[in-house]
Amino acid sequence: MDNSTLIGMVSIITAGVTMAIGGMIPALGQGKSIAAALNSLAQQPDANQTITRTLFVGLAMLESVAIYCFVIAMILIFANPFWNHFIA
Amino acid sequence: MDNSTLIGMVSIITAGVTMAIGGMIPALGQGKSIAAALNSLAQQPDANQTITRTLFVGLAMLESVAIYCFVIAMILIFANPFWNHFIA
Amino acid sequence: MDNSTLIGMVSIITAGVTMAIGGMIPALGQGKSIAAALNSLAQQPDANQTITRTLFVGLAMLESVAIYCFVIAMILIFANPFWNHFIA
Amino acid sequence: MDNSTLIGMVSIITAGVTMAIGGMIPALGQGKSIAAALNSLAQQPDANQTITRTLFVGLAMLESVAIYCFVIAMILIFANPFWNHFIA
Amino acid sequence: MDNSTLIGMVSIITAGVTMAIGGMIPALGQGKSIAAALNSLAQQPDANQTITRTLFVGLAMLESVAIYCFVIAMILIFANPFWNHFIA
Amino acid sequence: MDNSTLIGMVSIITAGVTMAIGGMIPALGQGKSIAAALNSLAQQPDANQTITRTLFVGLAMLESVAIYCFVIAMILIFANPFWNHFIA
Amino acid sequence: MDNSTLIGMVSIITAGVTMAIGGMIPALGQGKSIAAALNSLAQQPDANQTITRTLFVGLAMLESVAIYCFVIAMILIFANPFWNHFIA
Amino acid sequence: MDNSTLIGMVSIITAGVTMAIGGMIPALGQGKSIAAALNSLAQQPDANQTITRTLFVGLAMLESVAIYCFVIAMILIFANPFWNHFIA
Amino acid sequence: MDNSTLIGMVSIITAGVTMAIGGMIPALGQGKSIAAALNSLAQQPDANQTITRTLFVGLAMLESVAIYCFVIAMILIFANPFWNHFIA
Amino acid sequence: MDNSTLIGMVSIITAGVTMAIGGMIPALGQGKSIAAALNSLAQQPDANQTITRTLFVGLAMLESVAIYCFVIAMILIFANPFWNHFIA
Amino acid sequence: MDNSTLIGMVSIITAGVTMAIGGMIPALGQGKSIAAALNSLAQQPDANQTITRTLFVGLAMLESVAIYCFVIAMILIFANPFWNHFIA
Amino acid sequence: MDNSTLIGMVSIITAGVTMAIGGMIPALGQGKSIAAALNSLAQQPDANQTITRTLFVGLAMLESVAIYCFVIAMILIFANPFWNHFIA
Amino acid sequence: MDNSTLIGMVSIITAGVTMAIGGMIPALGQGKSIAAALNSLAQQPDANQTITRTLFVGLAMLESVAIYCFVIAMILIFANPFWNHFIA
Amino acid sequence: MDNSTLIGMVSIITAGVTMAIGGMIPALGQGKSIAAALNSLAQQPDANQTITRTLFVGLAMLESVAIYCFVIAMILIFANPFWNHFIA
Repeated sequence: MDNSTLIGMVSIITAGVTMAIGGMIPALGQGKSIAAALNSLAQQPDANQTITRTLFVGLAMLESVAIYCFVIAMILIFANPFWNHFIA
Repeated sequence: MDNSTLIGMVSIITAGVTMAIGGMIPALGQGKSIAAALNSLAQQPDANQTITRTLFVGLAMLESVAIYCFVIAMILIFANPFWNHFIA
Repeated sequence: MDNSTLIGMVSIITAGVTMAIGGMIPALGQGKSIAAALNSLAQQPDANQTITRTLFVGLAMLESVAIYCFVIAMILIFANPFWNHFIA
Repeated sequence: MDNSTLIGMVSIITAGVTMAIGGMIPALGQGKSIAAALNSLAQQPDANQTITRTLFVGLAMLESVAIYCFVIAMILIFANPFWNHFIA
Repeated sequence: MDNSTLIGMVSIITAGVTMAIGGMIPALGQGKSIAAALNSLAQQPDANQTITRTLFVGLAMLESVAIYCFVIAMILIFANPFWNHFIA
Repeated sequence: MDNSTLIGMVSIITAGVTMAIGGMIPALGQGKSIAAALNSLAQQPDANQTITRTLFVGLAMLESVAIYCFVIAMILIFANPFWNHFIA
Repeated sequence: MDNSTLIGMVSIITAGVTMAIGGMIPALGQGKSIAAALNSLAQQPDANQTITRTLFVGLAMLESVAIYCFVIAMILIFANPFWNHFIA
Repeated sequence: MDNSTLIGMVSIITAGVTMAIGGMIPALGQGKSIAAALNSLAQQPDANQTITRTLFVGLAMLESVAIYCFVIAMILIFANPFWNHFIA
Repeated sequence: MDNSTLIGMVSIITAGVTMAIGGMIPALGQGKSIAAALNSLAQQPDANQTITRTLFVGLAMLESVAIYCFVIAMILIFANPFWNHFIA
Repeated sequence: MDNSTLIGMVSIITAGVTMAIGGMIPALGQGKSIAAALNSLAQQPDANQTITRTLFVGLAMLESVAIYCFVIAMILIFANPFWNHFIA
Repeated sequence: MDNSTLIGMVSIITAGVTMAIGGMIPALGQGKSIAAALNSLAQQPDANQTITRTLFVGLAMLESVAIYCFVIAMILIFANPFWNHFIA
Repeated sequence: MDNSTLIGMVSIITAGVTMAIGGMIPALGQGKSIAAALNSLAQQPDANQTITRTLFVGLAMLESVAIYCFVIAMILIFANPFWNHFIA
Repeated sequence: MDNSTLIGMVSIITAGVTMAIGGMIPALGQGKSIAAALNSLAQQPDANQTITRTLFVGLAMLESVAIYCFVIAMILIFANPFWNHFIA
Repeated sequence: MDNSTLIGMVSIITAGVTMAIGGMIPALGQGKSIAAALNSLAQQPDANQTITRTLFVGLAMLESVAIYCFVIAMILIFANPFWNHFIA
């Protein structure tokens, strides 16, 4: 096990785990928000403009957390400064 | 255990675990959303256009998180830069 | 423990675990959706066309996550690039 | 511990665990669906045709996830390509 | 620890654990279904034919998951191909 | 630690754990069913024939899962083929 | 650590753990049943004959699971075939 | 670490753990039963004879599970056949 | 690490853990019972004699489980037969 | 690591853990009791004598479990028979 | 790792963990009590004297458990008899 | 494993884990807030100005916690003082 | 790993963990209290003086537990008697 | 692994974990508070001044716990007395 292997292994694992765990709760939050939106639509069909707009802003906000994780996973796979140091 | 074996093992495990765990919560969110949609339909059958449209946008959004994980799993199996480095 | 044994072991474990864990939550989501559909039918028998259609779209969507996991398990058992590399 | 022993051990464990864990949640989902169906029947006895039909489609769908796991367990015990490679 | 001992140990553990864990959730599902059936009977005594029939179909379905696990446990104890290979 | 000791230890542990864990959830299911039956009796005393009959069928069904586990525990203690192989 | 010590240790631990864990859920189930019985008595004092009878049948049934565990614990301490084999 | 030390250590740990864990859930069940009894008394003060009697039978039943665990703990400390074998 | 040290260490740990864990759930049960008693008093101030009496019997019963654990902890610290054997 | 160090370490850890864990649930129970008392006061201000008295008896009872743990922690730090044996 | 280092390490860890864990549940209980007090005030503003007084007694009681833990942490850091023994 | 490899590995893991775990609960909180906002809109469409404004302030506040974690992850990857020390 | 390194490491970890864990539940309690206060304000706007005052006393009380943990973390980093002993 | 590497590693991990875990529950509390505020606004739009003010005081209070953790993480990365000792 030389140094670059170790860095490689750790990068792979961290990339996968960060994406998998970091995407879990935003997805849960989105599920909750969509469910709440659907209930609200059933209850107050006339407010459907405001509800849809608020829902989309909220989903975008939640997606942003998942995207932070995706960004870190991508950095670790394709632009990893530690890996670059060792294979240099 | 030489280096490429280690990288190979770690890639396999991470690919599987990322897909398995990363797909869990989007699926849970989708289940919740569908359940909420069905309840809303039962309560307000007339709003069924808006409800169906909102549901499908939501499902697509959630599917996207599962797909990020699938993409990472596929990259790790078929386009893994660390693996390519070691077998080169 | 030579290299191909290790890769083989890891592939077997990952295939099984990915299927087992990755299939759990879609199944839970499907259970929830079916339960919600049945409640909705009891509450609003006249909307049964819309309810059934929405339910089936939802189940298909959820099944897709379980199928991603099944695909990865199958790739790991029968078309595993790492295994092919080592037994070559 | 030679190679075939290791592959054998891992196959046995994975087969059992995949079946045990993979069968858990479909069973939970089925339990939920049946319970919901029974409540719906009590509430709306006249819709019993639609309810029974929807329930059976749902149960079949859920059973399919358990069967994927059973298939993988059976492949690992009786048609395992890694095991065949080592005892060849 | 020679090879057959290892295979034997692993078979025993897996058989027990598969049965114990794999039987848990079907039992939970059955408990839920029976409880729901009893509540439904109290609420709608006249539908008792349909309720009883639906309950029994459901219990049979759930029992099947427990039986898959029992089958795998039995195969591992009395018809284990890996064990047969090593004691041959 | 010779081979028969290992097989013996593993058999003892597995027998105990299978019984302990495998008996947990059927007992939980039975508790739920009995509680539901008692509530139903309080709500609809006149249906007490049907309720009692359904309860007893359900308890028997749940007991069967606990008994599968008991059977496996007994086989492991008194009719264990692996143990017989090693002390032969 | 000779063989009989190991078998002895494992028997002690398993006996204790089987009793402790295996007695947990029956006790929980009994607690639930008793609580349900008390609520039912408060709600329908006139059905107290049927309620008491159903409760006692249920408690006996649950006690039986705890007793299976007690039996196994006792067998492991006082009639353990593996221990007898080694001290013979 | 000679044999009798090991047996002694294991006996101490198992005795404590069996009592601690095995007494947990009966206590929880008793707490639930007493709470239910108090609610029932508040709701139906006239049924207080039947309620008190049912409560005491139930508490005795639950205490019995805790006592099985206490018995096993006492056997392990003061009448342990394995310990007697080794110090003989 | 000679034998008496080991026995001493194990006794200390077990004494503490038995008391800590074994006292948890009785305390939880007592908390539940007291809360239920206070609610019942608010709902039915006239039944306060019966309620108080039932509460005190119940608290005593629960305290008994905590006291079993305290007894075992005290035995392990001040009257431990294994310790006495080794320092003799 | 000589014997007295080991005994010292174990005593410190056990004292801290016993207090920390053993004090948790009594505190939870007290929190529940106080919350219930406050709700009861809001609902039935006239019963405030009985409520306050019952609450204080209950808190004292719960405090007693925390105090058993405190006693054991103090014994382990300042009057530990095993420690005294080794430094003698 | 000489003896005083070990004792020092263990004291630090135990002090921190005892405070962190031991303070958790009293804080939870306080949160619950305050929430209940606020709800009670909203429901019965006239009883605000009694409510405030009961709340403060309760908070003090709960704080006492957190303070026991703080005392033990302080003893372990600044007046630790085992540490004094080793640096003497 | 030389020093810079170790620091590199630890930095990668910590960066990923901090982002993944630290982003979970803010996302959950945002999901809850959006759901509550949608329910409030359905209930009181006229207050939609205040609700939207409060929601956005809240989401920004929660996002800030996720951003603290992102900042630390970025510092660990691109401006890590420990790494700079070792590669200097 | 000499002694001061070990003490240093342990102090860092304990400081961080004590703050992180010890701050969790007070924060949860504060969240609960604020939520309860907001609900109470919505329900009884006239009692807003008493509610605000009670809330602030409660928050201060809860903050105190978090501050105990912060104090211990600070002592471990900047005024650690064990560290001073070893670097002296 | 020399001393400064160890201190470095431990500081990195602790900084990340403290921030990630320590920020979780304040975020959860904030989510709860915002949700409660939104519900209160929907229920009592006229009290919106008091509600907004109370909400902001509460959020600030909760943010303070997250900031304690951020401070400790920053101290560990940029002003760590142990690290300074070792690189001096």
